[in-house]
Amino acid sequence: MNYPLTIRNLIECYKKLPGIGEKTAERLALATLSINQETLDIFADSVANVKKRTKRCRKCNNLSENDLCEICSDQNRDQKTICVVEDPKNVILFEKVGTYKGAYHVLDGLISPLDGITPDQIKINLLLERINNDNIEEIIIAVKPSIEGETTSLYILKLLENKNITVSKIAHGIPLGADMEYIDSLTLEMALEDRKKISE
Amino acid sequence: MNYPLTIRNLIECYKKLPGIGEKTAERLALATLSINQETLDIFADSVANVKKRTKRCRKCNNLSENDLCEICSDQNRDQKTICVVEDPKNVILFEKVGTYKGAYHVLDGLISPLDGITPDQIKINLLLERINNDNIEEIIIAVKPSIEGETTSLYILKLLENKNITVSKIAHGIPLGADMEYIDSLTLEMALEDRKKISE
Repeated sequence: MNYPLTIRNLIECYKKLPGIGEKTAERLALATLSINQETLDIFADSVANVKKRTKRCRKCNNLSENDLCEICSDQNRDQKTICVVEDPKNVILFEKVGTYKGAYHVLDGLISPLDGITPDQIKINLLLERINNDNIEEIIIAVKPSIEGETTSLYILKLLENKNITVSKIAHGIPLGADMEYIDSLTLEMALEDRKKISE
Repeated sequence: MNYPLTIRNLIECYKKLPGIGEKTAERLALATLSINQETLDIFADSVANVKKRTKRCRKCNNLSENDLCEICSDQNRDQKTICVVEDPKNVILFEKVGTYKGAYHVLDGLISPLDGITPDQIKINLLLERINNDNIEEIIIAVKPSIEGETTSLYILKLLENKNITVSKIAHGIPLGADMEYIDSLTLEMALEDRKKISE
């Protein structure tokens, strides 16, 4: 004897999510039974279609339901300044601060020789392409202060040598080893403001 | 700027689950993007249909996709012994032990005057009905040792007075493998009270 099939399926699916083990999955599956059907229909539709509907912006690699994301297609934003971030979550974090009015570039990872992640496995080439085509004036590197972040940052800096582009880096103020997503908006805002020019 | 609509919907849906806040929901929604489509289709189907497909067994109130659950329709099990539990999760726990071969009764809660939960809000009437109709011989009360558990237990005991049914309660005591020094005094008191003679 075990749970009915549909509940068993639900448990297995919840277990595929990060940080969710057997017991939690069981609790979530049973809790799903108490959610109203209207919400469940939206939930099911979102789960079934999230991969199909969510593309990457062809310019900045951010999550988007269209070819170009909201930010890249917004002419009120400064499209000549690019804030380079590790993943789409970071874009949302900066947007919550609200003071940054430039564009972004989502790398989808950081260079990490130890984990075998080389520059061509993250979206650095796309960034370079954009810089060459779009008359970019400033690149703000906003990756977490870790070995991988520093490596990525130095690699980008090296690539942009002699390109007459200002390259800056968000200020330290973010504690080393901290995860970007747990930093409060004020710290992020200060870090943005205190960015340091690292090219001559 | 925020996440694309489908991801935003996913975040809102995950947030409806117990113990999941904004940050975790965000992480789960983005992680959903990395699950393969086949699993997502099963996930979506389960979410959409779990409420429609999952009924309660008309006899024991356990979760079931049929009118009668697997256990109640199993003639190899002792249908004259009923183990009374708080919720469907407990049925699965006892089934994992594997030694119990009787039937169950899922109360769906415990009597709790403080929280305004009265006997008619849990499935005690269904239990009584079953006892009157099915020639039940033993009731094993297997609810957690708390004020609510004791109240429910006493209430059932009172109901079954003069019905010539054996009523028993699972033993409360020191769990196997536990360190004596970490056991609270109430548990020790119960363990002493419920001591078992081991000499002839």
